[in-house]
Amino acid sequence: MGSTFGHLFRITTFGESHGGGVGVVIDGCPPQIEISAQDIQVELDRRRPGQSRITTPRKETDRCEILSGVFQGKTLGTPIAILVRNQDTRPQDYSEMAQVYRPSHADATYDAKYGFRNWQGGGRSSARETIGRVAAGAIAKKILHQFAQVEVLGYVKRIKDIDAPIDPAQVTLAQVESNMVRCPNADYAEKMIALIDQIRQDADSIGGVVECVVRNLPKGLGEPVFDKLEADLAKAVMSLPASKGFEIGSGFAGTLLTGQEHNDEFYTDDQGVIRTVTNRSGGIQGGISNGEPIVMRIAFKPTATIGKAQKTVTQEGEATILAAKGRHDPCVLPRAVPMVEAMVALVLCDHLMRQQAQCHLL
Amino acid sequence: MGSTFGHLFRITTFGESHGGGVGVVIDGCPPQIEISAQDIQVELDRRRPGQSRITTPRKETDRCEILSGVFQGKTLGTPIAILVRNQDTRPQDYSEMAQVYRPSHADATYDAKYGFRNWQGGGRSSARETIGRVAAGAIAKKILHQFAQVEVLGYVKRIKDIDAPIDPAQVTLAQVESNMVRCPNADYAEKMIALIDQIRQDADSIGGVVECVVRNLPKGLGEPVFDKLEADLAKAVMSLPASKGFEIGSGFAGTLLTGQEHNDEFYTDDQGVIRTVTNRSGGIQGGISNGEPIVMRIAFKPTATIGKAQKTVTQEGEATILAAKGRHDPCVLPRAVPMVEAMVALVLCDHLMRQQAQCHLL
Amino acid sequence: MGSTFGHLFRITTFGESHGGGVGVVIDGCPPQIEISAQDIQVELDRRRPGQSRITTPRKETDRCEILSGVFQGKTLGTPIAILVRNQDTRPQDYSEMAQVYRPSHADATYDAKYGFRNWQGGGRSSARETIGRVAAGAIAKKILHQFAQVEVLGYVKRIKDIDAPIDPAQVTLAQVESNMVRCPNADYAEKMIALIDQIRQDADSIGGVVECVVRNLPKGLGEPVFDKLEADLAKAVMSLPASKGFEIGSGFAGTLLTGQEHNDEFYTDDQGVIRTVTNRSGGIQGGISNGEPIVMRIAFKPTATIGKAQKTVTQEGEATILAAKGRHDPCVLPRAVPMVEAMVALVLCDHLMRQQAQCHLL
Amino acid sequence: MGSTFGHLFRITTFGESHGGGVGVVIDGCPPQIEISAQDIQVELDRRRPGQSRITTPRKETDRCEILSGVFQGKTLGTPIAILVRNQDTRPQDYSEMAQVYRPSHADATYDAKYGFRNWQGGGRSSARETIGRVAAGAIAKKILHQFAQVEVLGYVKRIKDIDAPIDPAQVTLAQVESNMVRCPNADYAEKMIALIDQIRQDADSIGGVVECVVRNLPKGLGEPVFDKLEADLAKAVMSLPASKGFEIGSGFAGTLLTGQEHNDEFYTDDQGVIRTVTNRSGGIQGGISNGEPIVMRIAFKPTATIGKAQKTVTQEGEATILAAKGRHDPCVLPRAVPMVEAMVALVLCDHLMRQQAQCHLL
Repeated sequence: MGSTFGHLFRITTFGESHGGGVGVVIDGCPPQIEISAQDIQVELDRRRPGQSRITTPRKETDRCEILSGVFQGKTLGTPIAILVRNQDTRPQDYSEMAQVYRPSHADATYDAKYGFRNWQGGGRSSARETIGRVAAGAIAKKILHQFAQVEVLGYVKRIKDIDAPIDPAQVTLAQVESNMVRCPNADYAEKMIALIDQIRQDADSIGGVVECVVRNLPKGLGEPVFDKLEADLAKAVMSLPASKGFEIGSGFAGTLLTGQEHNDEFYTDDQGVIRTVTNRSGGIQGGISNGEPIVMRIAFKPTATIGKAQKTVTQEGEATILAAKGRHDPCVLPRAVPMVEAMVALVLCDHLMRQQAQCHLL
Repeated sequence: MGSTFGHLFRITTFGESHGGGVGVVIDGCPPQIEISAQDIQVELDRRRPGQSRITTPRKETDRCEILSGVFQGKTLGTPIAILVRNQDTRPQDYSEMAQVYRPSHADATYDAKYGFRNWQGGGRSSARETIGRVAAGAIAKKILHQFAQVEVLGYVKRIKDIDAPIDPAQVTLAQVESNMVRCPNADYAEKMIALIDQIRQDADSIGGVVECVVRNLPKGLGEPVFDKLEADLAKAVMSLPASKGFEIGSGFAGTLLTGQEHNDEFYTDDQGVIRTVTNRSGGIQGGISNGEPIVMRIAFKPTATIGKAQKTVTQEGEATILAAKGRHDPCVLPRAVPMVEAMVALVLCDHLMRQQAQCHLL
Repeated sequence: MGSTFGHLFRITTFGESHGGGVGVVIDGCPPQIEISAQDIQVELDRRRPGQSRITTPRKETDRCEILSGVFQGKTLGTPIAILVRNQDTRPQDYSEMAQVYRPSHADATYDAKYGFRNWQGGGRSSARETIGRVAAGAIAKKILHQFAQVEVLGYVKRIKDIDAPIDPAQVTLAQVESNMVRCPNADYAEKMIALIDQIRQDADSIGGVVECVVRNLPKGLGEPVFDKLEADLAKAVMSLPASKGFEIGSGFAGTLLTGQEHNDEFYTDDQGVIRTVTNRSGGIQGGISNGEPIVMRIAFKPTATIGKAQKTVTQEGEATILAAKGRHDPCVLPRAVPMVEAMVALVLCDHLMRQQAQCHLL
Repeated sequence: MGSTFGHLFRITTFGESHGGGVGVVIDGCPPQIEISAQDIQVELDRRRPGQSRITTPRKETDRCEILSGVFQGKTLGTPIAILVRNQDTRPQDYSEMAQVYRPSHADATYDAKYGFRNWQGGGRSSARETIGRVAAGAIAKKILHQFAQVEVLGYVKRIKDIDAPIDPAQVTLAQVESNMVRCPNADYAEKMIALIDQIRQDADSIGGVVECVVRNLPKGLGEPVFDKLEADLAKAVMSLPASKGFEIGSGFAGTLLTGQEHNDEFYTDDQGVIRTVTNRSGGIQGGISNGEPIVMRIAFKPTATIGKAQKTVTQEGEATILAAKGRHDPCVLPRAVPMVEAMVALVLCDHLMRQQAQCHLL
């Protein structure tokens, strides 16, 4: 269960890392939006393994096919199904996994849940599942942009303890994409890449923090109670593989301030728009967007698959030693950036449609 | 929208801080569970303002009435509606709010969204809304306990920079309830109370971190993709008023480790159960519970309502000064504990039922 | 489960016939709609038992209270909770039911499902549950009218074999409400009333057909596949107690025609609007409204509770004889009219909001 | 929107008649169920056009591919995606449709809704969409059978005015499949086939009634209020193309009886099971299954596409004459049988899982 996300702009992903393919069905997409396989491919290429030496060396081309919902280059309003075939599968790399539980992977919990699992490459728990999310996110981004030039921009803020100073209000996509680690601060990017190179040689892995900013979002998105905008964003990104924490605005650090220090005072700008002087709220108050940039950070743990030997057990519970063969990803962060953007865009698109339905009906 | 939470164990809350009352409808509750108004009242009393000198001095008795779904002391399987009447309403305390936006409150965003709001005491954005959640959570807790002695236990881990060392595996409810700040470490509790007392006298406010542990949870709960257990938990607690961050297991700090340092190695215990040596995963792997304690932390910002003067604007955008009259809560943390527990219990109960439906059918 | 209806304009009902009360929570209602308890009471009075000699003689006043979601006479956009207290409960009338299954009632199936039931007066299966639906329907009707003068009008078309000729395009609310059986054809209404009077004296019951027409509905409502407008309407009315059949447009009789006889040819009217010459489609084509009146018919079986002696069994399976004491409703049709209208209005309001979200966003 | 059906056993269909293909994603399927493409193909072949001379002469082979969710011949518990490629597309047959609205088709309403449509062969409104439903239904049937030998059996009961006497309690699949019209009464089947042959030669079309029986269904499935079993069944089959009416048990005819004549008296059979003497309730009381066979009937109108000339308008509203070229289906009933069975099986499977979740948890 639980392979569907969203209430109005609703996506359903499918697929294991091995088998016929992975993909997504997007239901509820507004009609007459220009969309092509190429628009989607651009984002898939940012997510794809093997895009640089600091990501996993698996060469997955991940070519997408739009199966339905688009006609003469425009959305029909009907479900958009997108399929990416699985390739480059080397089952021999995974034969050990049929018996041995990889530490901090989902092998053991899948077996506990279903009594059965596809042990080839992680099956459904593989990051390949995010292909469907990123494809759908590409369309969500387009809608957001078309609606009000809303911009969703993620980037690597920190790798292990290398924490780059970045101004969320000023950062640009070009800066983010200017280097392979997707950190818009060039100096820090260099240090991060050096660290990842070293970790890769150690057959180890590292994590860090992705920051994501949303600019130009209209006021009024989000629901007051359970579906607060920050709650839906938290769920969205905490559903990504390897995420361990989420914070918005001042986040955990904000708990060190007093109310007087923390509160965002209001003022009216010269266009007559009510704004806040500071943005510790991170663009959301009472669950509803206030027109300031939304700023959030997501913690990603070091990738669980490493080349080093680890103690573990077999499916039958017998102690053994595992050292992952061949390929692994020393740092998921650069590829996590488009995943985060996709999830954020999906949430915003959904809330935009909700707002339209309830508050712009009469 | 968005006043319903849960897929199978599903609650819908209603009510503003002023008006007829607040409450909840719980749909999908299993039949034949013994439940009384008193069972629910116990939890409401933990949530209630005015329970001690360090919370808001509002004296709300918050007596609940079960309107439906319980017959002869047992649940019927039909919706359980619970109502708490509003009392102690002093509209005169709020008349200024009809015009003035309180900094870091939801007044301005409600107006932006709906073009209209109940300005008496916060309306729907009031923490009174959580009464329905806590009432429903009391029933969810009972089901979890009846199913497998599952225990959901929250406590105050940190107030501002006073961070109490606590062992989530050993902490007890008696320790938590032994003092008014709900920190199970008595020494630190004392320091926290002293700090809150001082902040209260300053007419300011502070925040901190609630930690929550779940023990005895069966393996196998949670869904692989969007409805990962940690994702649903994140949404649940990030939907509470004043929450700014969520982390599970190693959380943000885990990003400072390498994969080798972070991974939880498996072993088989003397009952033949496959377990992990460490628990940096926080009891969840691949979105699914692994039988280890679930440990999560939630950041709560300092309460927005303070007695000190703040710059703000009126509804029409004119600059003004606001100093909240009368009553405010210097620190929401002690009362946030039962709210967190309730939300966590609701998520777990829902996932327990999902697991039953899909994986224990045949 | 299953006490929530609707996707965007979403209602949750609660309550048994005995206990604290029955009611509804409406979530997703647009803000700033003028609504009063009196607006709702008007519809509840049309539904209420004891409104005339041909309905059940139970005198239920069914006064509603709006608990939340309305402020200064206007909707806030937050959940609207409405409560009607239970009164006139005579448990002694129901003591036999604690043991004996009433034929064609839900006593036995509730026990099979839940292993437990509230045997006082039908519990959750009582028609009192529809109070919440009718209350919510009153608001839905108001929204539909405000949006585009959409009119939802039900009436009694047939009682047993007395089938009144009525033109759905011309019928008015005044005609419907001019007599206690709610048949807009006065001559046939008289015959129907006479028949019900006779059946009541026989301590028996009868059923019939309610027809419902929707006028002024915009083109374009309804979804192509599962949530076709007729499918959602069918579910809506088939969820009413005692309903046994649903048809739209030509319905079952349409199956006796050939395609050539049945198809609705298109023409352009003098305002330039594309319309159909005939309306065998009943206002819906491919699941989507075409701007013609929606016409549907719902079969209601004779009320199960009768005064005559019937063979049945006890909870333990022992054969016995049951003759319902005291009060019963000889014909539910007049009271079913507002229930049908409410369900139809709820479906339309929901689809209006969906259409707004998806197709009027960009 | 609205391309997802079901709450726990949940399917999402996608695809237009022209484009990459049609298919379905099934989420929530229990793990470890043996399933093969061949199991699904059997049902697709019953649905497929061109299976006999009395259906549409389009030769669609409709070979299905399972893309995900099945490993080593067994379900994984993860989403099962099934794809059927589109073939035999002759766009030249449809070029006229780009401009002309076919009477009683969805061309005009799609344009009204989306402002845009895929005019090739009906697009999303094509009966090809039901491929996904039938594929999913094949799995649902298997689960129902594995759970409790539950059997879902549909058949043609009436074609135009040829109404075959059939005993729902005794009819077998072999009888249904013994002739190409899928009427288990051989004599009437012959008459029906003769009538369809004649109508086909007239370039006209006819409709009729499909009856569907469910045997061995456990007591207790269905929810008391909105998700009554008959309500969900009504929605399910009324979402099939060309359906115009639904009735259960005594249906519309039951409204001609009095309560005394209509009520199903209870008795205890020699195995000690509480049963009903008659089954006018059609196996459902108060929305919940009572263990008797569920019997329902669905009216299908004559197919809208006919070869005869009809008056209509162009997209711009200009009057014109249309006579469908080439291929059309004189009677959809034989192919509607597997569609009805699929929808019924999907509803039952979903309710089985709900019952498991709520009532068999503790």
